Amino acid sequence: MAASAGKRCERLEAASVRAVLAAADAVLFDCDGVLWRGEAAVPGAPEVLRLLEAAAGGGKRLCYVTNNSSRTRQAYTEKLRRLGFPPAEARQVFGSAFCAARYLSRALPPGGAAYVLGGAALSAELEAAGVAHLGAGPAPPPDSAHFGARAPLDPAVRAVLVGYDEHFSYGKLCLALRYLLRPGCLLLATNRDHRLPLEGGSAVPGTGCLVKAVETAAEREAFVIGKPSRYIFECVASEFNIDPARTIMVGDRLDTDILMGNNCGLTTLLTLTGVSTLAEVQGHLESNCPERRKLVPDYYVDSIADLLPVLKA
Amino acid sequence: MAASAGKRCERLEAASVRAVLAAADAVLFDCDGVLWRGEAAVPGAPEVLRLLEAAAGGGKRLCYVTNNSSRTRQAYTEKLRRLGFPPAEARQVFGSAFCAARYLSRALPPGGAAYVLGGAALSAELEAAGVAHLGAGPAPPPDSAHFGARAPLDPAVRAVLVGYDEHFSYGKLCLALRYLLRPGCLLLATNRDHRLPLEGGSAVPGTGCLVKAVETAAEREAFVIGKPSRYIFECVASEFNIDPARTIMVGDRLDTDILMGNNCGLTTLLTLTGVSTLAEVQGHLESNCPERRKLVPDYYVDSIADLLPVLKA
Repeated sequence: MAASAGKRCERLEAASVRAVLAAADAVLFDCDGVLWRGEAAVPGAPEVLRLLEAAAGGGKRLCYVTNNSSRTRQAYTEKLRRLGFPPAEARQVFGSAFCAARYLSRALPPGGAAYVLGGAALSAELEAAGVAHLGAGPAPPPDSAHFGARAPLDPAVRAVLVGYDEHFSYGKLCLALRYLLRPGCLLLATNRDHRLPLEGGSAVPGTGCLVKAVETAAEREAFVIGKPSRYIFECVASEFNIDPARTIMVGDRLDTDILMGNNCGLTTLLTLTGVSTLAEVQGHLESNCPERRKLVPDYYVDSIADLLPVLKA
Repeated sequence: MAASAGKRCERLEAASVRAVLAAADAVLFDCDGVLWRGEAAVPGAPEVLRLLEAAAGGGKRLCYVTNNSSRTRQAYTEKLRRLGFPPAEARQVFGSAFCAARYLSRALPPGGAAYVLGGAALSAELEAAGVAHLGAGPAPPPDSAHFGARAPLDPAVRAVLVGYDEHFSYGKLCLALRYLLRPGCLLLATNRDHRLPLEGGSAVPGTGCLVKAVETAAEREAFVIGKPSRYIFECVASEFNIDPARTIMVGDRLDTDILMGNNCGLTTLLTLTGVSTLAEVQGHLESNCPERRKLVPDYYVDSIADLLPVLKA
């Protein structure tokens, strides 16, 4: 907190870019709102990443850190390629689905399984990590309270994992509660995002809504994998032996990307191509509340394309 | 708060019953956990209510105040009769479904309608109050995110009402959010109960879980109709011209029944046949937190049947 208390959200001018980059070995990128919006790359972003990776005197390690639990690592590498970003390996991608699977592969007792609120991608990452699980996808018909209140419980279930679930229902909520009432059952969530913004200013409910429903029923808090939780950064750090003091986190959300970066001792860079605004930063800067001061980044840019002139020079 | 700060949760001994009752014109009863559990009356409870209503020197006005939004007023009068309680008129029953309908009949602008997460009883009470509404019951198939994200919005909708909904789904949550993103759309909830206890120690998720999901998506708080909100008592008081200072609230839950009673200046009586325990009261009594002191009732009984010997004498 002492580290983030002094952050002032300075505009990252061309004059400072070189020094800030020289002090970093790794750059972590949030994806939606930073690298792309929907299916369109942020103009200039692919070139910025190519130049960062190929910088003279040693390129930067690039990683992709996303709270989205509805895409696999593989799907992210394909999207990066499709939108013209430099080729990435799956191991550079840290989605909350992959990281949740990693967590459960260590936290579940032998023979234990997870009851999952989520879709195909979450299921695929659990499968890849060798985590036994059930519940993902549509519930068996009739999907009603009766299903949830009466379906037999699987004795192997020792954890409930809440991710983005388009098939979320009262019946699934009932079943989750019944598992959570059993002694020792873990409660895990991929992330707490309230909404997923859509093109044109609309939005759909995010995983955080489903997490709150389950937490309210269970009367306890979930362990959260995604940003701002430190866990997702610990996954990156353990995979690539990254030094937080020489790492930049680039994100468009103060309450997830920037807070995680500040909590983990990273240099934080806000880009204004996504959700958060400078007015919000201003509010936090003027606040006396230590919790709000943690949401202030070191720097901001209008777009990561602002780095282009210096990288090209 | 000053009024509730001095409450000490004394056992209502036979010696005090007569004085406490003499100071009251009306007694408000929560139902589940107080008058019955599931389909079984609390032994002695029907006789207590008959004697209260017929007391020498003027019987008490009895009212039934329940957060359950999945039963109509009529269904409650039928259950009271079925379990041997004294005959009640529908107007003595204040369920959160009826009171939500009453609220909306006044708060909605002319021509306005409500999008409802709820079942047949909530729909029936809205109908009876002349409130135009849509959404109650199963969603149109396929009930998925696509339904919620793509279904056309009804231009008349000016409020979202969240009640107990066995057909709650991600698609309905999407639709609720889309209505709530329109300027001026009200957000209303029947109640915040986390769980509905079942026989045998199990439970199903309560309306409060669904309310939290919608509030998280909408990023704002719902106006709540049920206990501990004052609104449900205001409905009783306006119907029967009741004096709070001469009214007893009898309930089994500290965080709904007792808190509402204390907030409204009623005499509060906890009965131990339901959810809350004396150990919880003790924790609140020992706390220095003013919010927790508001959860301490004036009196407690093991069961409302404890009143029987005095009423019979």
